[in-house]
Amino acid sequence: MKKINHIISANQFTKKDLREIFKITDRMKTGRYRKPLKNKILATLFYEPSTRTRLSFESAMLKLGGQVLTTENAKESSSAFKGESLKDSIKIISSYVDAIVIRHPDNKSMDVAAKASKVPIINAGNGTDEHPTQAILDFYTISKRLNKFNNIHIALVGDLKNGRTVHSLINLMGKYNTHFYFISPAKLKLSVNYKNFLDSENINYLEEKLENIINKIDVLYMTRIQKERFESLSEYKKINRSYLLSPKIVKRMKKDSIILHPLPRIQELPEEIDDDYRSYYFKQAENGLYARMALLYRILRS
Amino acid sequence: MKKINHIISANQFTKKDLREIFKITDRMKTGRYRKPLKNKILATLFYEPSTRTRLSFESAMLKLGGQVLTTENAKESSSAFKGESLKDSIKIISSYVDAIVIRHPDNKSMDVAAKASKVPIINAGNGTDEHPTQAILDFYTISKRLNKFNNIHIALVGDLKNGRTVHSLINLMGKYNTHFYFISPAKLKLSVNYKNFLDSENINYLEEKLENIINKIDVLYMTRIQKERFESLSEYKKINRSYLLSPKIVKRMKKDSIILHPLPRIQELPEEIDDDYRSYYFKQAENGLYARMALLYRILRS
Amino acid sequence: MKKINHIISANQFTKKDLREIFKITDRMKTGRYRKPLKNKILATLFYEPSTRTRLSFESAMLKLGGQVLTTENAKESSSAFKGESLKDSIKIISSYVDAIVIRHPDNKSMDVAAKASKVPIINAGNGTDEHPTQAILDFYTISKRLNKFNNIHIALVGDLKNGRTVHSLINLMGKYNTHFYFISPAKLKLSVNYKNFLDSENINYLEEKLENIINKIDVLYMTRIQKERFESLSEYKKINRSYLLSPKIVKRMKKDSIILHPLPRIQELPEEIDDDYRSYYFKQAENGLYARMALLYRILRS
Repeated sequence: MKKINHIISANQFTKKDLREIFKITDRMKTGRYRKPLKNKILATLFYEPSTRTRLSFESAMLKLGGQVLTTENAKESSSAFKGESLKDSIKIISSYVDAIVIRHPDNKSMDVAAKASKVPIINAGNGTDEHPTQAILDFYTISKRLNKFNNIHIALVGDLKNGRTVHSLINLMGKYNTHFYFISPAKLKLSVNYKNFLDSENINYLEEKLENIINKIDVLYMTRIQKERFESLSEYKKINRSYLLSPKIVKRMKKDSIILHPLPRIQELPEEIDDDYRSYYFKQAENGLYARMALLYRILRS
Repeated sequence: MKKINHIISANQFTKKDLREIFKITDRMKTGRYRKPLKNKILATLFYEPSTRTRLSFESAMLKLGGQVLTTENAKESSSAFKGESLKDSIKIISSYVDAIVIRHPDNKSMDVAAKASKVPIINAGNGTDEHPTQAILDFYTISKRLNKFNNIHIALVGDLKNGRTVHSLINLMGKYNTHFYFISPAKLKLSVNYKNFLDSENINYLEEKLENIINKIDVLYMTRIQKERFESLSEYKKINRSYLLSPKIVKRMKKDSIILHPLPRIQELPEEIDDDYRSYYFKQAENGLYARMALLYRILRS
Repeated sequence: MKKINHIISANQFTKKDLREIFKITDRMKTGRYRKPLKNKILATLFYEPSTRTRLSFESAMLKLGGQVLTTENAKESSSAFKGESLKDSIKIISSYVDAIVIRHPDNKSMDVAAKASKVPIINAGNGTDEHPTQAILDFYTISKRLNKFNNIHIALVGDLKNGRTVHSLINLMGKYNTHFYFISPAKLKLSVNYKNFLDSENINYLEEKLENIINKIDVLYMTRIQKERFESLSEYKKINRSYLLSPKIVKRMKKDSIILHPLPRIQELPEEIDDDYRSYYFKQAENGLYARMALLYRILRS
């Protein structure tokens, strides 16, 4: 039986894989490609809505000459509500298309999908677990800008317990000699299994206040803190305030450092920071297109 | 005026039509076709959500070289809610595309649509009335597997009153020498007009208990019983229990018989039956792609 | 920096522009075009649902050889609900595609979008402000049918205060020697800035009752009056009755006059009028396809 090239976790990529993927991403940026995915069909199944992420996958597929079948809101508008299991849906849909991009609120969804599918499954976010293609584009953006893979000091700020982009980025950059700073409210701290992983890889990490390390870091990776995680709005407001970026803090950052954010943002990243030359999040989002082209190309080329 | 090739009811297909359609379906399975529907556009208008059925039509169209415009949830997101009639919508949309697939909760919707449209309308389910393309793929699956068109003993189980897949299948197989067994709760029995149709065609049918005929049938066609049809949940639970399949019952089936289900399923078809070699419902769903390719090809080729 | 060809307001088009656009529209109707927009991608972002308008843009793009990414219900299913601003969404999505069609409930949305976007923005309706592509297709339909651009007597009927199709049509036809008749309930009168615009262009307009001018006009442009604009249903019913068309009124229209409506309609345009030879609204809707092809071609051809 032929192995299927699912993309489920950032964990699965070796350093060699990443070198290859980044090389293809570079090529995609130049526009030097024909239509390598002609006659291939990608389905996007979003059980949680995300226009931005969905369109970046779909545009990537079209630019490579492939075609797209879209499900903007699978939760509302699929037979899901009639009680059909994800397993049955994937079993059937995987006989219609060549690959399936899924976003799903359940952490276990990707394992279920990968097991049921005849074609590659691409995890576009599963609950609070992972978002591996985001980590690929994040690390591509970082390594290109800093021109290195190792000795990168990166601060991850926000909800590290539930933030799936953060989890995937740790899984990916944890394979390199990275220095992590974890900045989060007490109740939204990174879970122990990620710390165990970093320990096992002999990777340094510190739980710190942003103000204490802001002048040391190469990458400031901001994320949202969601109201729903707190018992009261007042508790949220009190705690959230400490995890908002301000121009005053940004001024203390190193000249050749960068600010990233997986977007969408709320107030943790005020618009006034957009003009700072260290703000790299729109460039990061744009890289998402090229990184996803590279991943689709790698999985689906004949 | 040129006749438009609508697909509204399973009734409309002659035995000759079906032979032709099945022959094209066979060819579609082999992949031996070019892009016969190049430059043709199909619109899918789903006033009731169904990711699976929608994607099978859309994939079929793309594989034939055509293109697709999609409406995942026409009820919510069209001008329908502003009061526009289906008639006006179809009149307008039919000047933008080459064919329209519609699923609609109203039994009369297809007649309205066909009358208003300048292009072929394909019924993908109209209320409790019909689902003709499902019947085509069902009968294709049956006749291929059993290698015959006649003398087939088929049990239809579940909500025969409101089940549109059942209605279309009766309309289709009622043209052949078929032996029907109807198995349903008293209040969900097949309506008299279908029985009259079978009488007029001299076709045998029996209303029976599943246990009494399970060892005689070639095809066990399971369908859902929907909670909404009953006045109370307890009544539903009590009655529904008799229409659930179990491995114990399946064991009594003939060796060369098959189990079908239009899917999605709820508890009437437990997952543990999936591994039985007589379970053919995922194959059936896959055939949906090829049967719909055949139908689109037949309607839209130049 | 290269200027981006946004379509935001009907105001922006010169008479020369319109001559060119109408000439291209004529050509699109003949079908004499290849695939000039090959490899171009259009995104449709509908923050207000409209199957009809969305599909007309999408069909136009496909017919020109381009491709489409669709968002049927951006309000419900995008990251909008997570708090992402339209500005951020457009910034990001405009790095994935070659043009963006937007419908949005906020009047200011198009200025925000145009400022944020790297690619052309096409206004498909912004709140109560404008709907410029509708005005293009309306005026195309009018000038083709009447075979003139000037000396046209047009009655605009309904909610002139909030009707965006009316606003754009005034902006467009106000550049020609047009005679306007404004027919609306007192509280839904055309706002003063449009009247000021017409005054500045030396264009005649009258606020009148329909019955007094029905026999003088070349074009009767009907629009909906929405219940939501009134404090009570009874008030709505009372007022609305005066703005419903009837066969009796239509009979008094000139022989070579036409009835238009941007559709969808409610009761202001009864179905019994559809058969009158002066009813031109389905032709008008069909022209929408060709006019939008012309606009997309003009903006996106290389």
